[in-house]
Amino acid sequence: MKKALIIGGTGTIGSAVAKALSTTHEILIASRSSEYQVDLASPTSIKALFDKVGTVDAVIISAGSAHFGPLATMTPEDNLLSANNKLLGQVNTVLIGKDYVADNGSFTLVTGIIMDEPIKDGASAAMANAGVKAFAKSAATEMPRGIRINTVSPTVLDESWSIYKDYFVGFETVSSNKVANAFVKSVNGVQTGQSFTVYQ
Amino acid sequence: MKKALIIGGTGTIGSAVAKALSTTHEILIASRSSEYQVDLASPTSIKALFDKVGTVDAVIISAGSAHFGPLATMTPEDNLLSANNKLLGQVNTVLIGKDYVADNGSFTLVTGIIMDEPIKDGASAAMANAGVKAFAKSAATEMPRGIRINTVSPTVLDESWSIYKDYFVGFETVSSNKVANAFVKSVNGVQTGQSFTVYQ
Ligand SMILES: NC(=O)c1ccc[n+]([C@@H]2O[C@H](COP(=O)([O-])OP(=O)(O)OC[C@H]3O[C@@H](n4cnc5c(N)ncnc54)[C@H](OP(=O)(O)O)[C@@H]3O)[C@@H](O)[C@H]2O)c1
Ligand SMILES: NC(=O)c1ccc[n+]([C@@H]2O[C@H](COP(=O)([O-])OP(=O)(O)OC[C@H]3O[C@@H](n4cnc5c(N)ncnc54)[C@H](OP(=O)(O)O)[C@@H]3O)[C@@H](O)[C@H]2O)c1
Repeated sequence: MKKALIIGGTGTIGSAVAKALSTTHEILIASRSSEYQVDLASPTSIKALFDKVGTVDAVIISAGSAHFGPLATMTPEDNLLSANNKLLGQVNTVLIGKDYVADNGSFTLVTGIIMDEPIKDGASAAMANAGVKAFAKSAATEMPRGIRINTVSPTVLDESWSIYKDYFVGFETVSSNKVANAFVKSVNGVQTGQSFTVYQ
Repeated sequence: MKKALIIGGTGTIGSAVAKALSTTHEILIASRSSEYQVDLASPTSIKALFDKVGTVDAVIISAGSAHFGPLATMTPEDNLLSANNKLLGQVNTVLIGKDYVADNGSFTLVTGIIMDEPIKDGASAAMANAGVKAFAKSAATEMPRGIRINTVSPTVLDESWSIYKDYFVGFETVSSNKVANAFVKSVNGVQTGQSFTVYQ
């Protein structure tokens, strides 16, 4: 059976992706508090994770923190959370992890609708999301050994609506199953360099 | 007369923008080696620049370095040049500079076509460009006192073709005057949150 490493696999999105891929892949769950321990903010920790898991067919990221707060008071230091965690954490996982991915394997990263439709307090996170999307689109053209790379951009999940609803006035929500299906398309399909939007 | 601060104003794009805005604005040129000294990579240096120039009507950036190199050998450290310089350098200029921009003033940042059309060795720079674009689009919704913010995304300039031609096979080039005109639209027009593309 193929192996899928899901960084953030214990979260709302990651657990749905783990379930959806479990018929085709052996699932390895990684996070700051999982058996496969990793902190996306640390390249050293990402390297240690891949040294521990060895070769995998699919690397999925459904993790990554960003700063949310008013532009009026946002400092360069605040914005570094988005840069170092959601943006560079995912990019570094590709740069470090590509040598551990099997021929014809794949990376699937996560972005989010707010890069396309701004929300209050969302400028820093939008920056991170769009950086991840553009990196993946371009990196797809240079991936070795048939490895593909895509991103998934969800709107707010049904499961997360109660937490985020004040920020997403008038947005549609989607089920975690629908979002997971976009990850399945990336992992088990043929496309590369794509941003799969799940906006309704 | 209004005042325009052009960070990178001695460069290929910046000098054309300075010329195009000189009928409407007093031009202040900033760069690492100009009278108004600044290094985009350093938030402290950006703060010192604004303390020196005081209030301005338009802040234009036509500077920002990024890493170009094969994905195969790109390290997290390589990629930090794009993150810290072209991406965070521009974002930090907005975060720090907004308090120095006059009511109804503007920011205009620079990105580039390779975020939309990947080129060889361009994944890291694409990341930086797209991050700047999405940040500006979102930040536009929270700018105080009628301040606007846009980005300009040029294809290769005629003037730069001899340096970059091997990377931009089949791309159209544009004149620096045409690119400067997009900056003029941002500075003297009414739009905000836009990415002005100059791709042909
Ligand atoms: N939920 C939504 O509505 C929604 C919509 C659009 C985009 N997104 C994006 O999708 C991603 C996941 O969202 P989610 O709602 O599924 O999050 P979540 O439920 O909070 O789960 C986050 C997962 O990532 C792990 N994690 C957090 N920080 C980490 C780090 N530094 N290194 C490694 N693992 C880390 C967490 O485990 P540990 O705490 O053990 O590390 C957990 O497994 C986020 O980037 C989010 O912005 C979410
Ligand atoms: N030329 C093109 O075809 C083209 C196309 C698309 C996008 N772009 C983008 O547009 C921007 C400007 O391009 P260009 O061709 O005009 O560049 P350029 O001719 O090399 O000029 C760069 C300008 O920025 C200044 N600069 C460089 N690093 C700086 C730093 N760390 N802090 C402050 N100022 C700095 C330089 O002066 P000092 O050396 O004195 O600091 C100079 O004024 C770049 O981000 C480039 O990627 C260019």
